[in-house]
Amino acid sequence: MKNIPDVLQDLLSLTSKGLVRSEIRELLKLTRQPGIISFAGGLPYSGLFPIEEIKDIIHSILDKEGEIALQYGPTEGDSRLIEFLAGWMKETEGVDVSEDNILVVSGAQQALDLIGKIFIDPGDPLIIGLPSYLGAIQAFKSIRANMVGARLDKQGINVETVEDILRTYTAKAQKIKFVYVVPDFQNPSGVTLSLERRERLLQLCYEYGIVLVEDTPYRDLRFEGEPVPMFRSLDEKGYAFSIHTFSKLLFPGTRLGWIVADKSIQEKLTMAKQPTDLCTSPLNQSIVYEFCRRGLLKTHISNIVELYKKKRDIMINALEEYMPEGSGIDWTHPEGGLFLWITLPENMDAGELFPKAVEKKVAYVVGSAFHFDRSGHNTMRLNFSYPSEEQIDEGIKRLANLIKQELSQTSLF
Amino acid sequence: MKNIPDVLQDLLSLTSKGLVRSEIRELLKLTRQPGIISFAGGLPYSGLFPIEEIKDIIHSILDKEGEIALQYGPTEGDSRLIEFLAGWMKETEGVDVSEDNILVVSGAQQALDLIGKIFIDPGDPLIIGLPSYLGAIQAFKSIRANMVGARLDKQGINVETVEDILRTYTAKAQKIKFVYVVPDFQNPSGVTLSLERRERLLQLCYEYGIVLVEDTPYRDLRFEGEPVPMFRSLDEKGYAFSIHTFSKLLFPGTRLGWIVADKSIQEKLTMAKQPTDLCTSPLNQSIVYEFCRRGLLKTHISNIVELYKKKRDIMINALEEYMPEGSGIDWTHPEGGLFLWITLPENMDAGELFPKAVEKKVAYVVGSAFHFDRSGHNTMRLNFSYPSEEQIDEGIKRLANLIKQELSQTSLF
Repeated sequence: MKNIPDVLQDLLSLTSKGLVRSEIRELLKLTRQPGIISFAGGLPYSGLFPIEEIKDIIHSILDKEGEIALQYGPTEGDSRLIEFLAGWMKETEGVDVSEDNILVVSGAQQALDLIGKIFIDPGDPLIIGLPSYLGAIQAFKSIRANMVGARLDKQGINVETVEDILRTYTAKAQKIKFVYVVPDFQNPSGVTLSLERRERLLQLCYEYGIVLVEDTPYRDLRFEGEPVPMFRSLDEKGYAFSIHTFSKLLFPGTRLGWIVADKSIQEKLTMAKQPTDLCTSPLNQSIVYEFCRRGLLKTHISNIVELYKKKRDIMINALEEYMPEGSGIDWTHPEGGLFLWITLPENMDAGELFPKAVEKKVAYVVGSAFHFDRSGHNTMRLNFSYPSEEQIDEGIKRLANLIKQELSQTSLF
Repeated sequence: MKNIPDVLQDLLSLTSKGLVRSEIRELLKLTRQPGIISFAGGLPYSGLFPIEEIKDIIHSILDKEGEIALQYGPTEGDSRLIEFLAGWMKETEGVDVSEDNILVVSGAQQALDLIGKIFIDPGDPLIIGLPSYLGAIQAFKSIRANMVGARLDKQGINVETVEDILRTYTAKAQKIKFVYVVPDFQNPSGVTLSLERRERLLQLCYEYGIVLVEDTPYRDLRFEGEPVPMFRSLDEKGYAFSIHTFSKLLFPGTRLGWIVADKSIQEKLTMAKQPTDLCTSPLNQSIVYEFCRRGLLKTHISNIVELYKKKRDIMINALEEYMPEGSGIDWTHPEGGLFLWITLPENMDAGELFPKAVEKKVAYVVGSAFHFDRSGHNTMRLNFSYPSEEQIDEGIKRLANLIKQELSQTSLF
């Protein structure tokens, strides 16, 4: 007779058989050792969380509407929050979205899960950047999508590759369902997609009849330069959907985001959300709504931008100061967001380097984690939002020393 | 050229093409008209929400650990909450569960979504009661499970039918993945599964190598009689998984539940949760944990039980007083929970009756909504937790008058 784990394993779906513990999350555990300076996380800086304001806000919510905030709420979301979001998008992006276009979700990750569900049957192809956001890769993998990759350079995703893929798949009579992009200060690379490429990509979506999924977690965290218009504001036909979150604008602990999509699809998204969690926490929606209603969001975003810009500058300065010159090491110069991307010489492997880095008390995320095809062996992601200014300088110094040491050893062979 | 909604509809997955607006939720909108006494909801009574305690709790959380509560948290859940839950299950159920057996989820609905995901590929069969919880039907439908129904009577699900199904499917070499039951004060029927049937059902699970999924939202809300042991406490092999929620024990607004499962499966559930929402709101977990840590949960549950028992008594008394005798109308006598189930004479249709009931300013849920195969035309679900005591008496009077009127008309033909 089989023992219980075997019996249970036999019952698993194909999807869950394919699920494996993320090695990246295992590596992250290593980075929690004392004394390690970690550039590996993706956390917003918690020292800026507006805790006193939130205390006051929750107090007033529970006084005024506690029985509603603690009860079930509509699947679509709190109508007051939806109304605020429509106005916010008009004001900050000049985008006209009606309340029918907005669905409140339990964090941007849920948006990825729902968008995946409503478009993808197992094996259906979609286009995704190399590299791309790890949570998107996991969401699309969990529904057994056929991910097709297009490389990024400093202008963002390569649109010619996207066109080649669309042409090839159309020739095979296979329908690409959507292109997934993080156009602004991409996670992990920090690069921003140029206006020219945005326009071309949108034309391709029209031409091939596919959806453009635009993920915008960092868009409002711009340190310098002019904003490039959102796909949603370039799009006059309704092919561009956008994903938004309060996790980086306010804090992640309330798990709150929203999707903007064509009305006909918004209904499907709502129907897909209902069996996954009925509704997003009404208490959390009230908290965030009240924060916004009091007009606190803009000032709060300015504070974040100011701090992260300073941290990015320190990181860039440290890289320029400590990294060996002429060694072929390259990094991006993000104009916003939380991350910066390093490309090592071809013959170096960021995965092999990782345990040595931990030994030297500095950590990053191995770039291959962000490539669904496991390419990108010589790349790494550094986060500058969470570590302190002193840690950034010291951590880059440690990393640069390690790389110098590696370079001197490889040059011996 | 196609217009945009058509282009988008062409891109939809099979799953989302199958999603239709729940007619039940459309009907529920009708019940929100002024003056209507609604037995249609499934809401806990919000007048009992411990708002003052929660105000104090949130204040202290934000003071002591605001930066943690508002940050991302581990996918598995807050380890303090998990530890509390293990102790709570030991104390209240005598069940030994280690912390490895527990996964915190964003409400019991997410548990259904995740359990579905890890076991079911499209077309895979599972066994579910007729009637059964609507949210479970929706969750299993959204992953295109092949639901196979077993009728309920006043002892709960018919175990002989379950055995027949298992035998038939085994003969066809088709693997039933699990049996889904709400053993205590079932939603919608209010019935409790007898000990004898629980023991037999568990034996069948062992014999056929399938999982028993036990959903327990109302279990702690027992008004009278002795608790029947949970499957989890009868099971010595690890085949029984259980789903729990704070929605009915405390309030739904924090969207918080947990799953107890074999360790080997708990890992898969955690991996399946990660791409759906990364983690359950750490703020909400802190709130509920602190409420429990202060020892407030037990007293709070007693208060709910006392009130709901009183309301159930009023409903049963009103049914006995107002419903026509000898007409073949029958109702269940739930020993706990939130719902009671009415069976009308065979020739009456609760769906056809519904608009007339709304006209008479009383509402219920049509029983067929809880049958995935749309059977149960002559049944209805009544909720007694939410309406006031006066509303229950008056509402049952209105419903009984309508039924009397219908009976007198049908007897004319």
